Amino acid sequence: MDLFGMLDELSHGLANLSMFPYFEMAHYVVSVMALREQPGALEVSRVSPLACWFSSMLYCFGGAVLSGIMLAEPPVAPLSNSTGVLLASIVWYLVFYCPMDAVYSCAALQPLRLVLSGMKEVTRTWKVLGGVTQAHSKYKDSLLVMIAIGWARGAGGGLISNFEQLVRGVWKPETNELLKMSYPTKITLMGAVLFALQQTHYLPLQKHHLMLIYTIFIVVNKSRMMLTGSSSSPFASVESALYRTLFSGHSPYAALTGDLKKPRCDNGTTKESSENGSTSPVTGQGSSLKAKDGSENSENTKKIN
Amino acid sequence: MDLFGMLDELSHGLANLSMFPYFEMAHYVVSVMALREQPGALEVSRVSPLACWFSSMLYCFGGAVLSGIMLAEPPVAPLSNSTGVLLASIVWYLVFYCPMDAVYSCAALQPLRLVLSGMKEVTRTWKVLGGVTQAHSKYKDSLLVMIAIGWARGAGGGLISNFEQLVRGVWKPETNELLKMSYPTKITLMGAVLFALQQTHYLPLQKHHLMLIYTIFIVVNKSRMMLTGSSSSPFASVESALYRTLFSGHSPYAALTGDLKKPRCDNGTTKESSENGSTSPVTGQGSSLKAKDGSENSENTKKIN
Amino acid sequence: MDLFGMLDELSHGLANLSMFPYFEMAHYVVSVMALREQPGALEVSRVSPLACWFSSMLYCFGGAVLSGIMLAEPPVAPLSNSTGVLLASIVWYLVFYCPMDAVYSCAALQPLRLVLSGMKEVTRTWKVLGGVTQAHSKYKDSLLVMIAIGWARGAGGGLISNFEQLVRGVWKPETNELLKMSYPTKITLMGAVLFALQQTHYLPLQKHHLMLIYTIFIVVNKSRMMLTGSSSSPFASVESALYRTLFSGHSPYAALTGDLKKPRCDNGTTKESSENGSTSPVTGQGSSLKAKDGSENSENTKKIN
Repeated sequence: MDLFGMLDELSHGLANLSMFPYFEMAHYVVSVMALREQPGALEVSRVSPLACWFSSMLYCFGGAVLSGIMLAEPPVAPLSNSTGVLLASIVWYLVFYCPMDAVYSCAALQPLRLVLSGMKEVTRTWKVLGGVTQAHSKYKDSLLVMIAIGWARGAGGGLISNFEQLVRGVWKPETNELLKMSYPTKITLMGAVLFALQQTHYLPLQKHHLMLIYTIFIVVNKSRMMLTGSSSSPFASVESALYRTLFSGHSPYAALTGDLKKPRCDNGTTKESSENGSTSPVTGQGSSLKAKDGSENSENTKKIN
Repeated sequence: MDLFGMLDELSHGLANLSMFPYFEMAHYVVSVMALREQPGALEVSRVSPLACWFSSMLYCFGGAVLSGIMLAEPPVAPLSNSTGVLLASIVWYLVFYCPMDAVYSCAALQPLRLVLSGMKEVTRTWKVLGGVTQAHSKYKDSLLVMIAIGWARGAGGGLISNFEQLVRGVWKPETNELLKMSYPTKITLMGAVLFALQQTHYLPLQKHHLMLIYTIFIVVNKSRMMLTGSSSSPFASVESALYRTLFSGHSPYAALTGDLKKPRCDNGTTKESSENGSTSPVTGQGSSLKAKDGSENSENTKKIN
Repeated sequence: MDLFGMLDELSHGLANLSMFPYFEMAHYVVSVMALREQPGALEVSRVSPLACWFSSMLYCFGGAVLSGIMLAEPPVAPLSNSTGVLLASIVWYLVFYCPMDAVYSCAALQPLRLVLSGMKEVTRTWKVLGGVTQAHSKYKDSLLVMIAIGWARGAGGGLISNFEQLVRGVWKPETNELLKMSYPTKITLMGAVLFALQQTHYLPLQKHHLMLIYTIFIVVNKSRMMLTGSSSSPFASVESALYRTLFSGHSPYAALTGDLKKPRCDNGTTKESSENGSTSPVTGQGSSLKAKDGSENSENTKKIN
């Protein structure tokens, strides 16, 4: 009883916590450092500071931009938050161009980085919740929209990574966050689902309690992963179980050979799909080569569309 | 007279026909099967069910998403149509993951597929008309906007195919629906033009009569193509005639050699355009290789911009 | 005094000058000719007139489309300006398909081209100003938004060039206007900054005076560059000075080797960033090859996101 009262106090305290400026700041620092550690990012920062700045802004405000686009709200809106942009720009400048690289060197120290990453995770809760409530105000009873917007707001930087990379002149079509979800994207999706369920009262929990639980979970988890250096998701087992039960109705090879025997209304596809079918699109080179072969018969397949 | 009366009855009956649920369903089934027959799609369905689901939704609701973006309406709106998304998701699941691949095997049988494709074509009329009227309500007297939106709504899945493929980790920049129109895209464009003309009363026809004529035309045509397995467009001759009269003012080679002789204000371009000019962009590899050579002189050409 | 009075008169006259139809026309002609001089554009005009037309429209109205998207206004809106689209389409047709290539041959003559380009530059002032005022009406006190929209409106064609090229089946991810700004993009950015400062009264100048100064500057500059055939930007020296003072805090190599010594929370990245770090993304092939190597460890780096 007393313990619960204490937790209730704590959750209320957390819910009233202001993200600005410290947590926002931590978010900017960690995001810009993540960009800097992308292959080739340092070269871009020399070749074109503007492209580098724009990339950094996409890392810092990607979620707001993406959810804005999805709700048909101006994607430039984040730029109108002058203070935020100014802070992020200062961080960007210090991380990339600080004399003797002092700032990055310090922030990259394990203990400091641990704290910053923890604080960044806290902002995630606020972003996801913000997205869900924003969607709820527009689409009262659509769970899917709430989840989508909450997810976009919380993991935007990752979801638009293909286009963020394009700004830096890098193009990796063979992979994206939907094909190969990274840990933060997964955890954000989970959060979006939980908060959407809470918002629609399917989840019998009070908002500030859920915020406390979710925040503690992601912070602890993040710290664990950083300390152990392991990239194993906490629910890998659940995932694989789900996967095995739901998505392994029949082996792809059975299906492929099946394709060959099946009657088909559009000639050409059969041969093609059995050929290309065996190249996993995740191994980009392969698929992009096949793409060229397949380009003319994509006409055939599209005829069905 | 009597025949006309009967046709009028029929057209009224068709105009009042409800697409939901049967025709919608057929549209989802045919669309998801088209996706499944794309090279590499089956692998994606194993590697990442989420990416596969998202691709399927783009196949089923691509038109609504595209026309939404073009009219600055929320692209997530289709997600708020819970019933539709639920139906499409069930279809997606059954087509890709049904035990023993039963559903796909059945639906792929020639006769059933013929019926389903016919029903899908019927939905096209409704989509195109919906797009045209929606545009008409926003841009009263702009024929072009009506055509564009009607086209996007009816053939969205095809028009955004480059980005739909990107979701699956496939990237074929060397081809798109504008460079090489597939049959459904052409027929939809034609429909959009007709309905836009009808909407603006340039076409002296009643809406329900046009709906009947257009629907019969596309259904019959589709069935013919599926039965004969021919991919020849019904108005290939008209197209080539139009093309010869309008777009062959001078041979491209004359033009290219001409370029060399022409005075030019920006140095460098001349050499380049005569070199690269001879690579058809439709042969992707070629152009993408050239792209690298051309990158620095694109500066020059862009200086004119 | 008298001279100033005259200048004042002149500036008022300029400010009241109507862009339609002559200057608009010149803008369309120069833009479509710029497209035609892009490598491979002539081939596209033969393979698919529609794709060519769409590309031309993006060259002519790219700014309006881009700023529309950024402000969540319908990107199809430019199509509703029937007169403009009609004019641009006529120009497009004459430049690409005129018998004996007469129109292009004439317009490409140095003197005529000089005049047309000069007139096109004049329209730039109006576009930038239009964008800035439009943004000002939506985001009262946000300088950044005004600059962004003014820039987008004035240099849209260049900023969306990657996607305009995609329409023609060309894809050059390794370069874009942010990575390697062309002269018109730079001059437009400068103009956007000036007009935004004037709009917010940080710049003690009257609007019509600024319009006169900016217009004269860009026209004179453009003519100089076309006559001398030099592509050297007028403020190259300023740029390099700024660059040296602001963005050379430490040499990239120091940073790269530094990366190796630094403690790191995510294993794997270190090796990678030191490897890939040394490939400039501007040399596309290189980075796109690296992209494949880096794809799996991008997971690690993204974990930080």
